Amino acid sequence: MKLYQSSGSPSSRRVRIFLAEKGIELDLVPVDLGAKEQFTAAYQAINPRSVVPTLVLDDGSSIAEVPAILRYLEDTHPPLPLHGSSAKGKALVTMWERRAELEGFASVMEAVRNASPGLKGRAIAGPHDYEQIPALVDRSRQRISNFYVDLNHRLTEVPFVGGQHFSVADITAVVTVDFATKAGKQPIPEELTALRRWYDGVAARPSFNA
Amino acid sequence: MKLYQSSGSPSSRRVRIFLAEKGIELDLVPVDLGAKEQFTAAYQAINPRSVVPTLVLDDGSSIAEVPAILRYLEDTHPPLPLHGSSAKGKALVTMWERRAELEGFASVMEAVRNASPGLKGRAIAGPHDYEQIPALVDRSRQRISNFYVDLNHRLTEVPFVGGQHFSVADITAVVTVDFATKAGKQPIPEELTALRRWYDGVAARPSFNA
Repeated sequence: MKLYQSSGSPSSRRVRIFLAEKGIELDLVPVDLGAKEQFTAAYQAINPRSVVPTLVLDDGSSIAEVPAILRYLEDTHPPLPLHGSSAKGKALVTMWERRAELEGFASVMEAVRNASPGLKGRAIAGPHDYEQIPALVDRSRQRISNFYVDLNHRLTEVPFVGGQHFSVADITAVVTVDFATKAGKQPIPEELTALRRWYDGVAARPSFNA
Repeated sequence: MKLYQSSGSPSSRRVRIFLAEKGIELDLVPVDLGAKEQFTAAYQAINPRSVVPTLVLDDGSSIAEVPAILRYLEDTHPPLPLHGSSAKGKALVTMWERRAELEGFASVMEAVRNASPGLKGRAIAGPHDYEQIPALVDRSRQRISNFYVDLNHRLTEVPFVGGQHFSVADITAVVTVDFATKAGKQPIPEELTALRRWYDGVAARPSFNA
């Protein structure tokens, strides 16, 4: 089993943090996004969508899309569950992880991809080219602000995004906050103290450096 | 267990088709989106994000977000699996369902929400108001065209979106095609014969009318 990934890719980092939390060891194969390696025929044979990460199984099958990769790793490595335990717990973790992704993670990516001069004509990751839309940058930044406020509210009620336990919802959320702070220059506002408390706790976990 | 939903909502329809395929019966509670019932305090107590559908369990817990609802229903009603069987099969269905949603379903919703005069100031579903961006309409329609071509290619290789069996990936894809055709006026192009063959087969299933 090999994970094709990039050290600078936030999507890849979601998988790396998951692996570190679960103590799963597998080969990490670097894909050089700067050199456009994801568009080579060799990489497209693994993932025709030209995105990272991709998990390649020993039988040669490719699994792409972060939630699909994490679900596979969870199913094949059940100890230390990061997707909840009961049917209800799993559903709630799925719900909160998805909200963190669609409202937070996707907004940060959209703001960065529609703003960066180096991504002109590449406003959406994947096999197709799309022009940037400058008006999307402001709207996405507004979405990130709202995501911060909503997440802060959630974290006044529970210690972790998915509830009482650390889960994939925390992984997606912390990678989002980090990427928004560094690439998006949009750090956690000072008054959101529950979000800050949660972030500091998650950032202190050894997996954070993965 | 009750499903709060709307007959005109494509997200609600994904759950209704799933219920019909599995033969699960539960109370459907209509939410009147035209009358803005989703913004009432009563509905926000069930789902603070003011979107449908929401599954309310007998203990009063709310599960929102379609993939979370479907996962819960699958876990609690295992016969006739619609999320794949083996760990690998489940991962591949998750991957294909997600692609259908992010590349297809989300593009259709984006095109419609940024174009419709009735959705001015409501370009994104949820608790926050966002202005429409007219440039997004064209880009989203281009994405739907690419989605059709990519899905047609996939369906030259396998009978169903997720592979050999009907799954949640087909449900998301068929609701997408239907909504793109009706609300987006963007039907399947004639030359995409594999996509048409698949669509006709799925539309002939009794669950299609759900």
